[in-house]
Amino acid sequence: MKHYTQAKRCSLDTLLSLLQAASLMKYERRYPDLSGKILGMVFMNPSLRTKLSFEAAMARCGGQALSITPGESSWAFEEQLGIRMDSDRPEHLKDAVRVMSRYVDALALRSFAKLQSVTEDVQDTTLRRFEDWSTVPVMSLESAVEHPCQMLADMLTIKEICTEPKAKNFCLRWAPHIKPLPLAVPHSAIFAAAHLGMNITVCAPEGYELHTEFIQYAKETTTFLGGTFAQSHDPSSLPDDTKIVYVKSWGASSLYNQPERQRQDFERHAHWMVDAPLLQEETRLLHCMPIRRNLVATDAALDHKNSAIIEQAENRLWAQLSILEWIFTNDDGVIQND
Amino acid sequence: MKHYTQAKRCSLDTLLSLLQAASLMKYERRYPDLSGKILGMVFMNPSLRTKLSFEAAMARCGGQALSITPGESSWAFEEQLGIRMDSDRPEHLKDAVRVMSRYVDALALRSFAKLQSVTEDVQDTTLRRFEDWSTVPVMSLESAVEHPCQMLADMLTIKEICTEPKAKNFCLRWAPHIKPLPLAVPHSAIFAAAHLGMNITVCAPEGYELHTEFIQYAKETTTFLGGTFAQSHDPSSLPDDTKIVYVKSWGASSLYNQPERQRQDFERHAHWMVDAPLLQEETRLLHCMPIRRNLVATDAALDHKNSAIIEQAENRLWAQLSILEWIFTNDDGVIQND
Amino acid sequence: MKHYTQAKRCSLDTLLSLLQAASLMKYERRYPDLSGKILGMVFMNPSLRTKLSFEAAMARCGGQALSITPGESSWAFEEQLGIRMDSDRPEHLKDAVRVMSRYVDALALRSFAKLQSVTEDVQDTTLRRFEDWSTVPVMSLESAVEHPCQMLADMLTIKEICTEPKAKNFCLRWAPHIKPLPLAVPHSAIFAAAHLGMNITVCAPEGYELHTEFIQYAKETTTFLGGTFAQSHDPSSLPDDTKIVYVKSWGASSLYNQPERQRQDFERHAHWMVDAPLLQEETRLLHCMPIRRNLVATDAALDHKNSAIIEQAENRLWAQLSILEWIFTNDDGVIQND
Repeated sequence: MKHYTQAKRCSLDTLLSLLQAASLMKYERRYPDLSGKILGMVFMNPSLRTKLSFEAAMARCGGQALSITPGESSWAFEEQLGIRMDSDRPEHLKDAVRVMSRYVDALALRSFAKLQSVTEDVQDTTLRRFEDWSTVPVMSLESAVEHPCQMLADMLTIKEICTEPKAKNFCLRWAPHIKPLPLAVPHSAIFAAAHLGMNITVCAPEGYELHTEFIQYAKETTTFLGGTFAQSHDPSSLPDDTKIVYVKSWGASSLYNQPERQRQDFERHAHWMVDAPLLQEETRLLHCMPIRRNLVATDAALDHKNSAIIEQAENRLWAQLSILEWIFTNDDGVIQND
Repeated sequence: MKHYTQAKRCSLDTLLSLLQAASLMKYERRYPDLSGKILGMVFMNPSLRTKLSFEAAMARCGGQALSITPGESSWAFEEQLGIRMDSDRPEHLKDAVRVMSRYVDALALRSFAKLQSVTEDVQDTTLRRFEDWSTVPVMSLESAVEHPCQMLADMLTIKEICTEPKAKNFCLRWAPHIKPLPLAVPHSAIFAAAHLGMNITVCAPEGYELHTEFIQYAKETTTFLGGTFAQSHDPSSLPDDTKIVYVKSWGASSLYNQPERQRQDFERHAHWMVDAPLLQEETRLLHCMPIRRNLVATDAALDHKNSAIIEQAENRLWAQLSILEWIFTNDDGVIQND
Repeated sequence: MKHYTQAKRCSLDTLLSLLQAASLMKYERRYPDLSGKILGMVFMNPSLRTKLSFEAAMARCGGQALSITPGESSWAFEEQLGIRMDSDRPEHLKDAVRVMSRYVDALALRSFAKLQSVTEDVQDTTLRRFEDWSTVPVMSLESAVEHPCQMLADMLTIKEICTEPKAKNFCLRWAPHIKPLPLAVPHSAIFAAAHLGMNITVCAPEGYELHTEFIQYAKETTTFLGGTFAQSHDPSSLPDDTKIVYVKSWGASSLYNQPERQRQDFERHAHWMVDAPLLQEETRLLHCMPIRRNLVATDAALDHKNSAIIEQAENRLWAQLSILEWIFTNDDGVIQND
């Protein structure tokens, strides 16, 4: 069964053909026919772009996306195995996933990192259990460690900006925040660049390292495709000829469970906020949004002619249309009917 | 006007033809054409299966189910008649129901029992008022005393398991919980068995009696159809040759408004939890879900090869498709257009 | 680009043709074809009629309305410009509106008055910013000062009641409440009457004046069309031959930010509650709902044979179908495709 949950589950060929399909859909305003198809989306965290773009994508194609918010309109889910369920979570995830699978054609899950332990986050347990228990394809709407829909959208945006991104300079640039954010988007951002063979620099203060196996995957992938991989701790400038600066905040794993020290550390790095002068003539600014203005990046940077954040957000729609077509298409290339 | 709100409102013929239609839809993957039809669903209590299965059913058939959650996205509803409305409920149910009727083709209501007074619960006031004030068909998504959609789904599941359920053994088996739950599902469970003429045993501790008129209806119905009706207080075993054990927790009406004593009583009956050894070779386990694992029934029982809870949940979809087709079909057998 | 956000933005010709289209749709049960169209609705305040009638309207026509509730399913929006975004509102309205515009074919906003300063409310800042930042048509689902969808629905209801409303008597009648409500509906109610050239009387206690520029617009418009405009402070009777009494509660701008004094003032005017004896033989009662029974108007008045509140609420659907057709139609009269 097809799942779209992790970069490494897809071959590079698959990703590039998803990218090409997304681009064609965008420029030819072509929508796949998903009449009667139903996508069940489970949101364990809030969402604007993801929810609205998936609902719009399904509606455009004749289908429907149905949202479940455990603990609000639906029962809260217990995830732990083997326990006596006497808490305020009356339904087990195992039962909920198996039941939802019977009503919809694919399931999608948003489930953020808990940011208490790197080991635990990297296991991405909730998403893994969805995959295990679902009897229909599973898509990730951002899990503890990756945001693969954002990744494909970012590949599309990069391709539009650079045309030939291979060996062009891409910089993932850390920014301060008011609270630690997960590493899913930074991981997927360097994956997007790696899948296009770019020269990647991750620029972040010491202590703000990405998870080892994700750096490793990006490094190996981009090297294989003719790019390079480097890290920097210098906030004062971007590498020369940076085509893309991808701004993003995330938390320091060494400060997990120490909110006050994390807060102070953000303040100590307040000068990492991205401002317009940092942008070179050819540098385009990306950010996955939502973005806190004048804290992560200044109004001047975000409203600069080189800012591509709105186009980038639009590309979520086209990337996801392409993923949905792929998910609902069987191995003979035909959209499956019941 | 057709309503689907109570077992006794439907003739046995109607119920059996709904059952047959549900079964055909399931095995032939046939969906009624409900293009342009709109179902308005009012949820006064949370839901996973009901909400998602109805939304999916309407979407599959070309229609849409729209959810209203009074007090959240919509105004809270006042239900009492004749009072000066100066509380935090700014809209009267009478007005809301009459208005919603003008926008949708059918209304559906979930409204749980308050569990403060049997007399009050049995009146099922909110649902009765919906029926009174609505100018379109009304469906119950579980009211204070019945869950008729669950009932039809359970008839389908029983029929799939037993093929010829008449005079086969069906046991509704009480289980402990952490708080008192309504009697709607246990009532509808014995109705499902009664409509198929089964030999019904209700097995529950003393003090956990179902409401008299519902027992009476089940007893008369099943007797008329060649079945029997009995009650038992013995948790140690099931009647011989039990084909279906339907596990369910509910509260003791003598302990309404005494939460602490109810809690103690559940603990005193903790050994009523259903475990795998209780299941005979031919016994299939049902439960309407959500189910608290290792409190109502053990993992071993729920994950046993004889557990049919997921299939039972899927049958909600097929039963409801059948009910929707019936609701939207006029007396000439044609789906009504405006 | 077309917006439907303020009465004065539409020519009288446009309004009258929207009215005629709404009426034809209602009596011929004609629905425009909006297949594949998507309406994004942002609710910053609760709604029953507006949400359900727009969702139903889009569904009837083959499209879909998607709801966003900032601060619940979606991120809370910051509206202030130029500030450092370190609050609990992680996304700027500017970014959210520009992004949503890329996913949907039109945006709609509900954003109530804050009732802290008349000057501020009259600026209707949130709606103006939606118009500025959106790249698709914007509709108002009630803003700080107008409710233009209610207005067109009210024109339809008045036309049904009066056939030839010109120079017939229309009375907007204030009523007490438990808390100050915005002036959007009273403004739009007198606009509805003014666009039909009626003889308008606003009957309210001293201190409960509508905003000057809205009175001015209604006065000039109705005078131009052959009607008259007057104000009264007498609760004891309606002007002779009143065809429509439009009941509505609103707050006194002189008591903004003084909740206790406002509450006392409502109590002092409790006798303004509308009761059945006030209704003349030919007087029809309107109210936009939700309405607090036996506080704003008695059960006897609201359930009187001359009460038209349910018909009025139904007309929301038909008015909005007409507006949606207009919004999605290009200047050549063809519904636009992508």
